[in-house]
This record gives sequence, structure tokens and C-alpha cells, in this order.
Amino acid sequence: MKNTYFTPGPAELYPTFYQHLQTALDEQIGSISHRSQTFRDIYKHTDEQLRTLLNIPATHGIFFTGSASEVWERILLNCVEHESFHLVNGSFSRKFYDYAQSLHKYAHLAEKPFGEGFDYADIEVPEYAELVCVTHNETSSGVQMRPAEIHKLKRKYSKKLFCVDIVSSAPYPDLDFSIIDSAFFSVQKAFGMPAGLGVWIAGKSCLEKAERLQRYDGMTIGAHHTLPTLWKNYQTFETPATPNVLGIYILGKIAEDFNRIGIDTLRRQTEEKARMLYKFLENHADYEPFVADDRHRSQTVIVAKTKQPSADVINAARQANMVIGSGYGKFKESQIRIANFPATSVDQVAALIEQLKK
Amino acid sequence: MKNTYFTPGPAELYPTFYQHLQTALDEQIGSISHRSQTFRDIYKHTDEQLRTLLNIPATHGIFFTGSASEVWERILLNCVEHESFHLVNGSFSRKFYDYAQSLHKYAHLAEKPFGEGFDYADIEVPEYAELVCVTHNETSSGVQMRPAEIHKLKRKYSKKLFCVDIVSSAPYPDLDFSIIDSAFFSVQKAFGMPAGLGVWIAGKSCLEKAERLQRYDGMTIGAHHTLPTLWKNYQTFETPATPNVLGIYILGKIAEDFNRIGIDTLRRQTEEKARMLYKFLENHADYEPFVADDRHRSQTVIVAKTKQPSADVINAARQANMVIGSGYGKFKESQIRIANFPATSVDQVAALIEQLKK
Repeated sequence: MKNTYFTPGPAELYPTFYQHLQTALDEQIGSISHRSQTFRDIYKHTDEQLRTLLNIPATHGIFFTGSASEVWERILLNCVEHESFHLVNGSFSRKFYDYAQSLHKYAHLAEKPFGEGFDYADIEVPEYAELVCVTHNETSSGVQMRPAEIHKLKRKYSKKLFCVDIVSSAPYPDLDFSIIDSAFFSVQKAFGMPAGLGVWIAGKSCLEKAERLQRYDGMTIGAHHTLPTLWKNYQTFETPATPNVLGIYILGKIAEDFNRIGIDTLRRQTEEKARMLYKFLENHADYEPFVADDRHRSQTVIVAKTKQPSADVINAARQANMVIGSGYGKFKESQIRIANFPATSVDQVAALIEQLKK
Repeated sequence: MKNTYFTPGPAELYPTFYQHLQTALDEQIGSISHRSQTFRDIYKHTDEQLRTLLNIPATHGIFFTGSASEVWERILLNCVEHESFHLVNGSFSRKFYDYAQSLHKYAHLAEKPFGEGFDYADIEVPEYAELVCVTHNETSSGVQMRPAEIHKLKRKYSKKLFCVDIVSSAPYPDLDFSIIDSAFFSVQKAFGMPAGLGVWIAGKSCLEKAERLQRYDGMTIGAHHTLPTLWKNYQTFETPATPNVLGIYILGKIAEDFNRIGIDTLRRQTEEKARMLYKFLENHADYEPFVADDRHRSQTVIVAKTKQPSADVINAARQANMVIGSGYGKFKESQIRIANFPATSVDQVAALIEQLKK
């Protein structure tokens, strides 16, 4: 019997994945040249579907990398001469900050304890920070920063570039790309695909910065997947190096499925399932939502404290063919993490809740 | 009717690919955590099979990236403080050199005209070059450098790190990893898989260099996929970021299939098919092998000059459901490129030759 994966990525594959994969194999997409018209049509289709789904304007390009982690490095190399600023409230926002330090950027941070979130009013962006790095959804702690708060912050610091990590939440957050300069995600989360493909959305503001930095003496923006080379190739829907062609094809097809359902419906379904889960966690003696403030609670990665050791809860669920994640890092044994992505239905979430009650 | 792809990557999928993919889907490999024992077992298996296939000693680790192009950047960042040296005789060895320049390394080069190859006796490595970058097989021009020549060069310059691009030839070349410090390839060539996974083999000599550079003031070895973080995670068969898990699984299975056939048999088959192709090209009035010197002729990417416009040859083959590559860059219209990878059999090569005769 197959498991249902409620893990926060890699996660349950989206139900239509298998059929799109079969079509791709029938059409031999795994063998086509990435310099062929067939590939350019695939890239264009995926670009159009993501553009519709996430409401991305013509000012922004959509690029492919090996992973979202790769994008952390790329945007820091391409968009920061000296200083970046990071909102850190968990392990992944911390890694983004660590990347900046490894690249010898002067990295500022504002930090919240694990399980707490940021609001607009909390944040003072340092004067010389060039790039503000915001994590919409902290996969490790289940904390979100609401898009409205991110937008207010950007409006206050409109001259600075804003980059939003939507790795474990896209397409849920309704980001306003008329002001947000860049965002990125990976496909093994809410898009329900196997890992191995990162998606980087970046606007002309980012490109201009990268081109400027590239002209500076003694400044390198890297060699692989630089924004100017990605952008140049993108003009003809090509990529600088051979990309994950099969992944790009399937991503376009799943984004098309999402568009057929409609982003509003998808968001409503996500909120409904999240409401079911949080309500259960609040009312059951054996569990408690980890994130105290309702407005900071993630809609896509729900983290709960468990009264029993989390391994007992996880193993019992496993017996019932449901896979849930453990807590992250030092919370491994006292928390569980439940992904709430489009691949799992209301019925499946209801079944999980029944299992957790046992 | 399905096409047979003789293109030099992406290429024909290896016949067992489909069955391995099906097993992976049945076992839900696309959903498993990259921090699980199941994943560690997969990485370990792929590591063991590649180690057997390519005769890689315990001094070397095997790491995964998004592509082979990514490895160009990684090895330059991790193993070059100031100076690299590049043997350039085509578009891909040139790109490796370009990457070094983009990273502001002092990049030396020895260059041969397109279609010509290097021998040991030709090469003087500059005194301060730290890394010697050799392309075993130039995918653009169909030129190889024989492993024996590479080994002689390394023995002469034994203190320098040697890195060999085997992107479009692995597992064919019999490299001696007791002296070769690093090599890399991508899976969409001779391993017959869809693109989206690079493989980086690097020895302790490379790690030590990276660790040394990391300690230097003002020196960055990058942030993503640095050799020290790859190596640290590799100790428990993990990866720093979520990798292409499905690709790693299938690569291990195909490497296992290759080991079952035996690397000697695979190499003999490759040579036999290459002999058939070159013999035909030499004896037919409409074609001519592009690479004049027999010892520089690639066994895995065979390039031919065509009397007719190459598009005519390519289109005619296409009608017969055989896909061959065009020439690279400015040779697009006057050359064809034929991949000779394990995925295509002697019979398929014979059928292609019959087609080219028409």
C-alpha cells in the first residue's frame, strides 16, 4: 500500500504528476536538445503558466536552477556589492544569512526566536543594506510572514531590492511582483514534484544591479547561472547550460493544472485544510500548535508540539501509511511537521487528523 | 513511432531507464526525505556502483550537483587561489576557461584549432598554475585527449591538481584516479538519463586545497556546494541541500547495469561502434571525419563533415526516426555529430549507417 506523504518536502507527488511524466516519456522529452524549438516551446509554456499562476509581470524573468539553495547564492552574488540584510527566524533563513557570510558580504540580521515571526513594525532595515532577504515561510519552524507585511516593508524601503523565499509556500502567497524584486522556490514542495529543480523569479531591477556589479573592478558575480547570462538566454527561452528539461516540462503542466483549478480556489483549499489542522491541534490534549501567534502561523507547513515523543506519533502514523515530518534540529523529538500542499486533499487531511487522535 | 536519439546529450535514454523509473515511482522515491536512511542507502549504492565502474579509490568522494557546468565553477572556486590552466580545443573547454575569467582567476590557456587535439608533448604548464583543466572529450568538435597522455602530463606536473572533464565520455575513459585529482560528468550523455544531475569526483587533494583557501583572508570558495560542505555531508551519505534524489537513484541502477555488463565489454562495444562509424565516414564520398588524426578522434561523439548541407542529412534521418546532432556553432551547417553512447546498440548504429548511405 502506498504512503501519503505529509512531509514538508520532498513531499507527496501531485496526483497528475504520473500522467504528465508518462506523456513526457511518450514524447521522448528526456532526449530532446535544450537548443531545439521543442524545448523553447516547453520553457515558454512553463513560463506562461507560472506567470498566470503567480501574477508575474513582464518586468520579471523566470529562470531555472538546480535547487532553491542555489538561488540563495546566485542572488547574493548578483545583487549585493557589500551589504545584505536578513530576517532570520529559523534554520533556512539562517542558512541564507550563512551563505552571505560565506560570500564575504557584510550580512546584517534581525533575529527572532524559533517559532516567532516578523511584522512590519518590528523591522528597521540598515541604511546601507542593498538586498533585503525575507523568508515568507520558514520550513523549519512553521512560521510565516504575511505578504501584506512584506509589501509594507518594501514600500518603506522602496530603493532596496527585496527578495522573498517562497520555497515551501509557493503558489500560496499572493506576492505583489510590481514591487517585489525577486522570489524563488523549489518544485518538491507545494508543486508536488521530485526534487532537482529550482525556480528563480527576478525583475529588471535585479538584472540592472547585476550588470552594474559585473562592470566593477575586482567584483565577480560568479560564473555559472549569472543573472545576465540567464536573462540573455531567456530572450529565446533557452538556458545557459543543459537544464532539468523533464522537470521544466512537468512543472509547466502542473502549473497549468493549478490554473485550471484557479489560484483563488487553491488558496482557499489550503486555508481550509490549515484551519482543520490548527483547530485539531488546539483542541487535543496531546498536541499544541508550536507557533503561538495566529498571524505568524504557516498555512503550508504546520508545526505542532507533541506530548509524547514525536517518534511515537510519527511511527504510529507510518503504520497507517501516512508519513509526517519530525521537528527540525533540536526540536526533532518534541515536534512534528505536517505539510499542507495541494497534493493532499481535504479527505486525506481529515484521515490524518483521525490518525493523530488515536 | 519512437525516434532513436544519436544526439550528443541529451541523448537516447538507456533501455533500462524506464524500468528503474517505474520501480522508483512504485517505491515513492520522489517523496522520500533526503535526510532519511532510505536516501542514505540510495546515495551509498550509487557511490559504490560508480566507484566500481570508474575504479575510484577511497581517497576520492563522489558528489552531486545540478549539472556538469556547475562543477566548472565549483572546482575553480574551491581549488584555485590565483591561477588555472586550460587546454582549450572547442566550445566547452573554452567555456571552462571563460568561467575562470568570470571568477577573476588568472586563467592561462593553450589553444588548438577546432578539430585538433592535444598530446602530452605539446603542453607546457605555466609555473604558477594551481589547477590544470583538461577536457577528455570535446563534445563540440569530437576531439579526445587520450588518458595515457593526460596521465603522462600529470606525472610530469605531479604537484599540480588535475581536473578532467569527462562529461560526454564517462564511463568510457580509463582514468587513473590514483593520480587524477578530480573529474566530472553529467547523466544525460553516456549514462542515458534525462538531464538535471551533475556528478563530481574529487580527491582529498582537492578538499585540502579548498580548506586551505577557506582559511585565507578575503578569499571565498563560494557558499553553495562548497567542497568542504559536500564532503562533510558525504560522510553520512547526505547532501548539503535537497538533491535530485530520483536521478541519484536511477544513476546507481544504471551504473549497476553497466557493471553487470562489465566496463571492459562496454568499452569494447563503444570502440566497435566507433570503428563502424569512422570506417563508413572515411569510405563514403558524401562524408569525411572532421578530426584528421586518428588518435584524437573521439570514441563517443563522432563528428563528420557533410558534402550536402547538414540539415538535409539530419532531416532525412529524422524521416527515418533517427535523430542526429548538427555541427556546433559555426559548423552547424557543414557538420553532423553522432553520439556513440551505451544506449544505442551495434544494430542501431548499423541502421544509422544504412540511412546515411541513402
